[in-house]
Amino acid sequence: MHQPVDSLATPRFTGPRTFARLPYVPTLDGVEAAVFGLPWDGGTSFRAGARFGPEAIRSASALLRPYNPDQRVQVFGAVSTIDHGDAPTVPGYIERTLPRLQDFVGSIAAAGVVSFGMGGDHSVTLAELRALAAVHGPLGVVHLDAHSDLWDRYFDLPYNHGTVFRRAIEEGVVDPGRMVQAGLRGSLYAPEDEALAADLGLEAIPWRELAGLSPEAFADRARARVGTGPCFFSFDVDLVDPAFCPGTGTPECGGPTSFQALELVRALHGIDFRGFDVVEVSPPYDGPGQQTALLAATVLYEMLALHARGRADGSAADRRIAATGVGELDDVARRP
Amino acid sequence: MHQPVDSLATPRFTGPRTFARLPYVPTLDGVEAAVFGLPWDGGTSFRAGARFGPEAIRSASALLRPYNPDQRVQVFGAVSTIDHGDAPTVPGYIERTLPRLQDFVGSIAAAGVVSFGMGGDHSVTLAELRALAAVHGPLGVVHLDAHSDLWDRYFDLPYNHGTVFRRAIEEGVVDPGRMVQAGLRGSLYAPEDEALAADLGLEAIPWRELAGLSPEAFADRARARVGTGPCFFSFDVDLVDPAFCPGTGTPECGGPTSFQALELVRALHGIDFRGFDVVEVSPPYDGPGQQTALLAATVLYEMLALHARGRADGSAADRRIAATGVGELDDVARRP
Amino acid sequence: MHQPVDSLATPRFTGPRTFARLPYVPTLDGVEAAVFGLPWDGGTSFRAGARFGPEAIRSASALLRPYNPDQRVQVFGAVSTIDHGDAPTVPGYIERTLPRLQDFVGSIAAAGVVSFGMGGDHSVTLAELRALAAVHGPLGVVHLDAHSDLWDRYFDLPYNHGTVFRRAIEEGVVDPGRMVQAGLRGSLYAPEDEALAADLGLEAIPWRELAGLSPEAFADRARARVGTGPCFFSFDVDLVDPAFCPGTGTPECGGPTSFQALELVRALHGIDFRGFDVVEVSPPYDGPGQQTALLAATVLYEMLALHARGRADGSAADRRIAATGVGELDDVARRP
Amino acid sequence: MHQPVDSLATPRFTGPRTFARLPYVPTLDGVEAAVFGLPWDGGTSFRAGARFGPEAIRSASALLRPYNPDQRVQVFGAVSTIDHGDAPTVPGYIERTLPRLQDFVGSIAAAGVVSFGMGGDHSVTLAELRALAAVHGPLGVVHLDAHSDLWDRYFDLPYNHGTVFRRAIEEGVVDPGRMVQAGLRGSLYAPEDEALAADLGLEAIPWRELAGLSPEAFADRARARVGTGPCFFSFDVDLVDPAFCPGTGTPECGGPTSFQALELVRALHGIDFRGFDVVEVSPPYDGPGQQTALLAATVLYEMLALHARGRADGSAADRRIAATGVGELDDVARRP
Amino acid sequence: MHQPVDSLATPRFTGPRTFARLPYVPTLDGVEAAVFGLPWDGGTSFRAGARFGPEAIRSASALLRPYNPDQRVQVFGAVSTIDHGDAPTVPGYIERTLPRLQDFVGSIAAAGVVSFGMGGDHSVTLAELRALAAVHGPLGVVHLDAHSDLWDRYFDLPYNHGTVFRRAIEEGVVDPGRMVQAGLRGSLYAPEDEALAADLGLEAIPWRELAGLSPEAFADRARARVGTGPCFFSFDVDLVDPAFCPGTGTPECGGPTSFQALELVRALHGIDFRGFDVVEVSPPYDGPGQQTALLAATVLYEMLALHARGRADGSAADRRIAATGVGELDDVARRP
Amino acid sequence: MHQPVDSLATPRFTGPRTFARLPYVPTLDGVEAAVFGLPWDGGTSFRAGARFGPEAIRSASALLRPYNPDQRVQVFGAVSTIDHGDAPTVPGYIERTLPRLQDFVGSIAAAGVVSFGMGGDHSVTLAELRALAAVHGPLGVVHLDAHSDLWDRYFDLPYNHGTVFRRAIEEGVVDPGRMVQAGLRGSLYAPEDEALAADLGLEAIPWRELAGLSPEAFADRARARVGTGPCFFSFDVDLVDPAFCPGTGTPECGGPTSFQALELVRALHGIDFRGFDVVEVSPPYDGPGQQTALLAATVLYEMLALHARGRADGSAADRRIAATGVGELDDVARRP
Repeated sequence: MHQPVDSLATPRFTGPRTFARLPYVPTLDGVEAAVFGLPWDGGTSFRAGARFGPEAIRSASALLRPYNPDQRVQVFGAVSTIDHGDAPTVPGYIERTLPRLQDFVGSIAAAGVVSFGMGGDHSVTLAELRALAAVHGPLGVVHLDAHSDLWDRYFDLPYNHGTVFRRAIEEGVVDPGRMVQAGLRGSLYAPEDEALAADLGLEAIPWRELAGLSPEAFADRARARVGTGPCFFSFDVDLVDPAFCPGTGTPECGGPTSFQALELVRALHGIDFRGFDVVEVSPPYDGPGQQTALLAATVLYEMLALHARGRADGSAADRRIAATGVGELDDVARRP
Repeated sequence: MHQPVDSLATPRFTGPRTFARLPYVPTLDGVEAAVFGLPWDGGTSFRAGARFGPEAIRSASALLRPYNPDQRVQVFGAVSTIDHGDAPTVPGYIERTLPRLQDFVGSIAAAGVVSFGMGGDHSVTLAELRALAAVHGPLGVVHLDAHSDLWDRYFDLPYNHGTVFRRAIEEGVVDPGRMVQAGLRGSLYAPEDEALAADLGLEAIPWRELAGLSPEAFADRARARVGTGPCFFSFDVDLVDPAFCPGTGTPECGGPTSFQALELVRALHGIDFRGFDVVEVSPPYDGPGQQTALLAATVLYEMLALHARGRADGSAADRRIAATGVGELDDVARRP
Repeated sequence: MHQPVDSLATPRFTGPRTFARLPYVPTLDGVEAAVFGLPWDGGTSFRAGARFGPEAIRSASALLRPYNPDQRVQVFGAVSTIDHGDAPTVPGYIERTLPRLQDFVGSIAAAGVVSFGMGGDHSVTLAELRALAAVHGPLGVVHLDAHSDLWDRYFDLPYNHGTVFRRAIEEGVVDPGRMVQAGLRGSLYAPEDEALAADLGLEAIPWRELAGLSPEAFADRARARVGTGPCFFSFDVDLVDPAFCPGTGTPECGGPTSFQALELVRALHGIDFRGFDVVEVSPPYDGPGQQTALLAATVLYEMLALHARGRADGSAADRRIAATGVGELDDVARRP
Repeated sequence: MHQPVDSLATPRFTGPRTFARLPYVPTLDGVEAAVFGLPWDGGTSFRAGARFGPEAIRSASALLRPYNPDQRVQVFGAVSTIDHGDAPTVPGYIERTLPRLQDFVGSIAAAGVVSFGMGGDHSVTLAELRALAAVHGPLGVVHLDAHSDLWDRYFDLPYNHGTVFRRAIEEGVVDPGRMVQAGLRGSLYAPEDEALAADLGLEAIPWRELAGLSPEAFADRARARVGTGPCFFSFDVDLVDPAFCPGTGTPECGGPTSFQALELVRALHGIDFRGFDVVEVSPPYDGPGQQTALLAATVLYEMLALHARGRADGSAADRRIAATGVGELDDVARRP
Repeated sequence: MHQPVDSLATPRFTGPRTFARLPYVPTLDGVEAAVFGLPWDGGTSFRAGARFGPEAIRSASALLRPYNPDQRVQVFGAVSTIDHGDAPTVPGYIERTLPRLQDFVGSIAAAGVVSFGMGGDHSVTLAELRALAAVHGPLGVVHLDAHSDLWDRYFDLPYNHGTVFRRAIEEGVVDPGRMVQAGLRGSLYAPEDEALAADLGLEAIPWRELAGLSPEAFADRARARVGTGPCFFSFDVDLVDPAFCPGTGTPECGGPTSFQALELVRALHGIDFRGFDVVEVSPPYDGPGQQTALLAATVLYEMLALHARGRADGSAADRRIAATGVGELDDVARRP
Repeated sequence: MHQPVDSLATPRFTGPRTFARLPYVPTLDGVEAAVFGLPWDGGTSFRAGARFGPEAIRSASALLRPYNPDQRVQVFGAVSTIDHGDAPTVPGYIERTLPRLQDFVGSIAAAGVVSFGMGGDHSVTLAELRALAAVHGPLGVVHLDAHSDLWDRYFDLPYNHGTVFRRAIEEGVVDPGRMVQAGLRGSLYAPEDEALAADLGLEAIPWRELAGLSPEAFADRARARVGTGPCFFSFDVDLVDPAFCPGTGTPECGGPTSFQALELVRALHGIDFRGFDVVEVSPPYDGPGQQTALLAATVLYEMLALHARGRADGSAADRRIAATGVGELDDVARRP
């Protein structure tokens, strides 16, 4: 059972930084959940810097402790969790980078390990979706973000952080009928941009609407949308207002507080997530107090708790087997 | 028709910074809305730095896109809008600076162009009000701010960022019967300070009260107050809590979030604003993520949208003509 | 009557920094309220830096004015208030430092002066509680914080910022039956940590629950808990979300806004507080705009207002005399 | 004659930022020297951010005045100089970006205008060299840098900021027999790396050796090496110690001071430079005082002075015609 | 005898910040040397912020100890030295501010106390010179700066930080025949600017020349120039390269290191300085490590040491009496 | 053979941060050189923060490559080197912390592995010296620092960062006859402080004197002093001027440049160093470009190169055996 170093025994500021002081383990035996970095910012249209996102999230995550009182679940110590290191990238070459990211995540998925990615700009999510869909089939998606990331092209080229979900749908790795995105706000190119989600067949909830929903109401809607099949959960930190997450590439003013954002995440239990990511952390634009990295680490921790809850009550695993029949025996067998 | 460079064709981080990537145009032909800077911080009583406010707002505004989904209006492309550069100032000499600012804004107003000023400390607003009143007559005012700016003197002298609206009322360029200020909070010199607004004949809504109003309720109250005559809208970024706007000269803790503040602005449609400003952006105190400048740019964008809405439905222009009869023929004729 | 320099006569950025531009007075004659620093960060488990907390709070406090409109009370000018300087500390030696802090605060308490401490990490509160209990007997406590600070030991040693209230209860300087803590959130070591408060006999309100209470409802509950005896009020700035207070040692995402936090403080009138502190301000992690220090200064100002209200209506003083009979005659006699 | 706005008439902090307050001119008529940005950081192997280099250099350059006393030459007012805006780039696609940069610079070169590029990471120089060689033939090069940028591949791919001069030599756009690089220092992959320059036929002067040369001795050596043919001058700000240039992608400790670096630049008169660049300015890593951007602006200003000196004495132009016979008639004719 | 708090007894980070932990004393009895602030930035032509210079210098000066080994003199404990607080200013009104500064410094000079001013932008020096000349007659001046500050007008107005020494000469408070300025560098408006010093009758040593002089050679030249009469020593921190002093209003790249600058100051013994200042410290542009403020504090400390040396050997006082006959009996009598 | 990850294969910004991308290895088999952190700042008298020094040095060290051209030696790949993690500490309890640090270093020394410590404030060096002396006997010391660290007590207590070498000499773990310290500067408490080194029997070279020595002359003097016995090399980053190392606890202006400092280190070959450290890196005071951490990483790299040179030519190992006869057979046998 992999778990963090005990912070009552040695101070939190001690030792090479891994996520939540978990062991760095380059292999996957005996592992149920793997946290890893996707250090890439070549797909960003404005501020770069997200290649250092994983380093910053690891640094801030030293404050995390094993038990999550909001979700009432033991996160570390109950689920064997590791820091799996970072995927390789090739600065300047997005089309060379995506397959490398995909291979890295693919080996995790193939081992039946649930993946928790630390971005990196949002273009990395395409690689994760490709890798997971190869193992689990087309994925449902819960996507929290200020931007839809459904644009077609920038500068006449297909891959970047604003086109990732359109590409994923076109490639069939995401099932738009089982996808919901929420938190959308900010200026657009044209009125038609508001129709992008509907045109592509997915559900979109603008922040203006989301602001009026309770976390449970939102979660019910998300659960109804994504159903019981295998899913992915992607959290772009620019969902949150720039006061809480200044360290990001394309901030949008006027979003939720961190409390509102965390409550949305915590409410999303009971979904069969096979992979998660938190993206768009750009440390050079963060404050000296690293609030963006700290929130990203906390969101990841809540995601780990969602997974731990699913395991604890068994219901998610059961639904998973019933619904997909893919790789589930291994998945269950792997558990002690 | 002046409009921004297309950010789907060249990246947003390209080119000399103008507001929202609009063309810098020193003349006013064919222009309906002019954004400009008022680079002055000689009137501030605490932190200086606002002379660089226009530069920072321009830098952050590169993220703005043409269509505003919150107000459901095309902002750029529908209204011919330019960056008109900055007004001249004289560091150290506030009484020399105010007339120069006034001349600059006056030429915009005289051309029938709606003015959008980027401050600069709040003392610049006096120059704007003088310039606009010279063209439009005494103005109604909507003033969002943590401070009333109604004090009489500091250090026994009349002009600075805390006395601007008292001076404007005394000079007759603002009609206090058509002025409302909202968001007031923070410590005062004495209990009598709370009566300043009433003594001067304007309406004041403290933040404590505003916090309990819906944006529409506030807007209704503002509309009722300012009536159908020509108005000015001044937004001091210290209205917003310092977590959202740390980069300002006299921050006051415990204010609205940026979402609350933007909703207040968006609600103020249907008023005949002839000029707008966003003031007190002091970049050296902003965070590395420039959240203050970004919010100021967004507020200005919402103001541009208010103007675009007014034009789109025609009703504002109609009301303008009916109510004031000043300069309106030119105003209408100017439009293509 | 000690009161601040007049900021309408000389600018706020003038002169050596003391709290709110109050005179620095090393003696206690004619003093009713003493603000002072506790420059210590040897008890922090993560980020250090709070030894510079008092300097930063003093710097930011220059913006405070004498009248508090939220509590409708004259703070300065009505209560004779000073900046009493800083307590001595011994870097690296927490067990040598605590008695020095205690002596410093003890001399204030012995003089019948109400104490307002600026931290420093939370371990300083143990010294304050010891000092005040020596004069007033066991204290009731209102404690606003993201953390319970009820752990037993770190690294097998008893004194640090996470054990302070357990130690105080064990030592009998705090009466757990008259103690309430609120705002708790963030990950824990184990589910049993949630029971720490109950085990020790005090009342704990997690942030999740507090978020649903009105300030007055919270204050009623606090008043009911602490009763009419002498009390202490401790405010850890990590109560507030890191967007508002990034400059702190162990930030926890997802907390209240500064407006919410200030409203909680303002509601706590009518309690017989003999001492107050604001702790865990770590300036090197604050933003360039110093928002953490500014909020800490504002919280301290609201505490001074609570005290001024108590004095103004006489009821608190009356209750004090009735309830404790300790030192009250001197206390009353001291007032002009 | 294009020249800057007069800073004795309007303050330096006024107006949209262009290089040295020069006019932004998108055309090239009547222009002799064009300053422009190359906003790209997709080729950097460590810290990104240089896409904002042109913005930062423009911002800092507001401090530049027209006369250069170190080189005793009038820079602005004597040579018609503009800010020509920025070249387009495609984030994430280095092989798509290089041709766009090349086209932009090519049009300047084709117009007989001397080019002054603001980077951007060093990979942009390959595009500049291609563009200039297309007009002027193979170029001599003076290259000041902590790194040789002669590596073959990173991550098995050919284009990035560490391979630029090897590629340029392989492509024949640089004549290694007329190239000198100086300032090299810092750790290497293997001892053979020290032989890279010799293997490729160019001259390399490590910082350890350069530190012992007077600026004139260095310049004599450079002049001897590059001869009288058309040349390019590339200055990577990481030449200078990180105390002076912290805002860069791959800093190397232990380099020259800014005074030493500027003296090297000033000494390089009498060379027939057809293009110049200053690269690797990464603003998010710069200090609040923007010292890196300021030094980059100053280096560019010294380069403009080198050009102005060449024109003033006529000798460079004469040598140009004698030595290359390429495009010189146009070049001379172009001058008023 | 006023002297600092002992930092072996209480930590340096303790207590309200005064210069070097000296007592804050608003009166002048028993005082020989008075350090004070001139919090003003209304005269700056580029970056503001120097109004907070005194606060930052005080903060950094906590590191200073009583004995100066470079000058081999006891600074504190031998000379009765105080922090005298700050002069009043009026933001926005330079012509109202200068007399207030002058009155403040004048009272110090009138008491026979040597004055040590902390700026503030350089325009404050005009007030100091007026005040000291009123007591001591026309002053000799040693002026270390990157800029001559001899311009006539900016924006057609007479007072700002670039015109101070021309005004002082015109007013007769400085004797140009006894003035030397050194360290000049950076771009100018026109070649004639290089002749400004000669035209006005003072001696100017550009940095290019100063860089080749030993500190003693420079000091000999300065001593020869200023003679034995009463003098003023003004140090603008932009003398030093921006790597050492980023926190300043108009930085110039390519200047001396801090070691070179301090050696110049230390060499200037044996001059009858009646006043000193260190100006142009702008904290919002300083690095997180406050290196500019620290250097300013150290320069001021070296100035205090120059004064202490003069007193220790008696020669300066003797020369003073012989040369001027002004106020010297009081000056001597004042000493214990 | 342990060596770093290849940065031509995966980018430098990839993976959990260890020193120079070396493997983190908690055991010592097959190891010759161990780099480790000493995360402690409880002994600092001014600014805290050095507990995060190891994290920052690791982060910056990603730029280091295997071959050192200045010392002409292969550093990585030739000597089996690891990142050994961090020693445990107890915040607030210096007397509890020192033994834990000592045990950690002692186990390295006992294994015959050369130790390279990353501080942490300078008090950690006492633990290192105790640990190494227990294995190797009393040590010679080369100490580069702005401060002598020979004071007796602060606040009447024995252990902190200013007393470390006095304690070490008193305890007999350092032989003052074989110790030299250099770089001393800055103000002192009294003239007698200059005699501290002589009184204790060690040699001290002030920066003023060191500035006039060539690196080789200094190294010759150091070699003559420390002789052929086992030695320790301690480098306090405040040796270097604050422009280069702002991120430190007690900066002193007017020191060497980073180039000068590195040259001093590189010259110290041929000494039998058994341990090294670089201390006083305080990241919260470093610039955004991390120049302090980068210089500390580079100094450590030069120390590793000194060790590699010693091994390469065999002479140091030979001298070691001849001179001490302690543990050398194991040491030699351990090598492949």
